[in-house]
Amino acid sequence: MTAIVVGYVPKAEGRAALRRAAEEAKLRGARLVVVNSSRGGRELDDDDAVRADAELAAVSKQLEEAGIEAQVRQLVRGMDVAEDLIAVAEEHSADFIVIGLRRRSPVGKLILGSNAQRILLDAPCPVLAVKAEDVD
Amino acid sequence: MTAIVVGYVPKAEGRAALRRAAEEAKLRGARLVVVNSSRGGRELDDDDAVRADAELAAVSKQLEEAGIEAQVRQLVRGMDVAEDLIAVAEEHSADFIVIGLRRRSPVGKLILGSNAQRILLDAPCPVLAVKAEDVD
Repeated sequence: MTAIVVGYVPKAEGRAALRRAAEEAKLRGARLVVVNSSRGGRELDDDDAVRADAELAAVSKQLEEAGIEAQVRQLVRGMDVAEDLIAVAEEHSADFIVIGLRRRSPVGKLILGSNAQRILLDAPCPVLAVKAEDVD
Repeated sequence: MTAIVVGYVPKAEGRAALRRAAEEAKLRGARLVVVNSSRGGRELDDDDAVRADAELAAVSKQLEEAGIEAQVRQLVRGMDVAEDLIAVAEEHSADFIVIGLRRRSPVGKLILGSNAQRILLDAPCPVLAVKAEDVD
């Protein structure tokens, strides 16, 4: 069974990526591996951690209800998002990785962050890049 | 019927993109729109033009033999590849665009060219980025 790996953050771009990844998993009968990666430490306070847990539990439930075989992995091991996603994609011999692109500049202009660039270039498989406004 | 738009150049990364796009079109019963864009003028001498024509004819034949409904468009209208691909994706309300990423630096390091960045950011739909070595 092939696997699709998706980088998830509880933001518009993360939800857009997850939605598209779920559609693709359903279409090809693939397993979905949802990766929520954070570096831990000061980046993540207790409130954030509780919120993230609750959201990931909700995500798992939604996928199960949609009949998609999914595994939700929360990685807090001090690695960059790019490293985590690439490692998981290698581990599962992923068919492809889905990432969300986000608006980051003050005027809302979309720019390609360094993590997105590294995933696009270093991933062992194709990468599907979804913008929040593609589906929202 | 949904459409998948793929940027094609007669190089390893273009062939990788085309191969993947064809698989995706087959999987979802989508129409494939193959875009070969060049700016024309001095970039393209007569020999190149003849070679490009021959390759595109071969591509059309292969897709037809594979049972994929495809349209091959050779655009020479002085626009950037990014502009051409985005315009075609809009015209066809494409489900997604497939692009190939290429090794460009002297040591073969993969870098994200400006056209790839613009397509990823400005496309009206998700973009699947395929590296030549993903499938070659």
